[in-house]
Amino acid sequence: MASAFNAIVLTLFPEMFPGPLGQSLAGKALTDGVWSLTPVDIRSFAKDRHRTVDDSPFGGGAGMVMRPDVLDDAIGASYPGAGPLIYFTPRGRTLTQKRVRTLAAESVVTLVCGRFEGVDQRVLEHRKVEEISLGDFVLSGGEVAAMALLDAVVRLLPGVIGRTESLEDESFETGLLEYPHYTRPDPWQGVGVPDVLKSGHHAKVASWRREQAEMVTKERRPDLWAKYQAQSGAKTPALKT
Amino acid sequence: MASAFNAIVLTLFPEMFPGPLGQSLAGKALTDGVWSLTPVDIRSFAKDRHRTVDDSPFGGGAGMVMRPDVLDDAIGASYPGAGPLIYFTPRGRTLTQKRVRTLAAESVVTLVCGRFEGVDQRVLEHRKVEEISLGDFVLSGGEVAAMALLDAVVRLLPGVIGRTESLEDESFETGLLEYPHYTRPDPWQGVGVPDVLKSGHHAKVASWRREQAEMVTKERRPDLWAKYQAQSGAKTPALKT
Repeated sequence: MASAFNAIVLTLFPEMFPGPLGQSLAGKALTDGVWSLTPVDIRSFAKDRHRTVDDSPFGGGAGMVMRPDVLDDAIGASYPGAGPLIYFTPRGRTLTQKRVRTLAAESVVTLVCGRFEGVDQRVLEHRKVEEISLGDFVLSGGEVAAMALLDAVVRLLPGVIGRTESLEDESFETGLLEYPHYTRPDPWQGVGVPDVLKSGHHAKVASWRREQAEMVTKERRPDLWAKYQAQSGAKTPALKT
Repeated sequence: MASAFNAIVLTLFPEMFPGPLGQSLAGKALTDGVWSLTPVDIRSFAKDRHRTVDDSPFGGGAGMVMRPDVLDDAIGASYPGAGPLIYFTPRGRTLTQKRVRTLAAESVVTLVCGRFEGVDQRVLEHRKVEEISLGDFVLSGGEVAAMALLDAVVRLLPGVIGRTESLEDESFETGLLEYPHYTRPDPWQGVGVPDVLKSGHHAKVASWRREQAEMVTKERRPDLWAKYQAQSGAKTPALKT
């Protein structure tokens, strides 16, 4: 636990880790010891010589369910007894950037990756597991969800992204989606970069970016737009659309 | 293009693929040729000897932006001219199981993974790119988002999950989160499996599962619950809570 942030991942596929988290931004931070990653093989807690971890569901239906005794032993042996204990399931509460921020402030996070139809409900209740969903779609297991959560958390750890300013404007931090980006060449394919971005007038740039952020949020995410309007109240002038 | 489903992934980190998609369910389907995965290195389309792919943003601000000319050349060389062309960004429309289902019916899907602050807006407009967000959180790049999308799609391809019944009841297909699962041992830690699941009475099991699905949806996802109620109208009796 020498790192500022330590992830313990319970999975039937420990060899999937670090996978994409071993490269680029997260990979460099892992090598630098900013965070640590400890995969735990759930199958090593199986009780029989066939190393069985699942069984058929009571009440019938297709698919298999992960046994509560095996998973509970895996949790007992690896969960440090404090910090978030998270299971990925479409039944969970949807992951948000706000939860990512609070997770980035923890020192240890324990993640349980299910496979098959899911895990026995009793172990989730017994261990008071927090159920999180990546979004309204279904994955074949929790591993890729764990990678997404860890990628989102690790980039927020101190020193991982050089300049913290690049985090301030991004989507969800302001309650809006982010404004569009432009770089060289200018023009490109006959299309120039918006003049205001080349004006050198900081207040005008900020105002244009705010307007663009509001427009894209209004168009693509009426749900976020409604929340944003409710929060900012009369401070926000109506957009001309 | 011998497979039923073919994924082309444009990325600065082609070595991240197949990563977790090379194992378990998706990995077996990949080995069996049910789907194919072709990573394309965006950096190989850089124009200078430093292999530069990014530049600073017009209008100022932290972070770098991917150049439109480099990415456009990468798309030009790899996009087959038909089928979805998707870029992962928090600015996009949120991925849903419905979109996953329509993508699973395509023969080729081309995915663009951004890094840095994002890509130049002009190439997204020029190529009429579909912008998709995995959820309301921010990743360090599109690669893990691409893996999540492909994992969700591949499990729906014919033959990947043995029995299609296991897909019918799951979260989002019915408009509800899924009911809880139970398997052996029974009892476990002094807690028994609900009697109804051991009754052998199919109609009662179905009714109990429906009630459980409605309860968890109402509690955890009032947004889905409201949609579900609006769609099912008077057919759904009120829950006793």
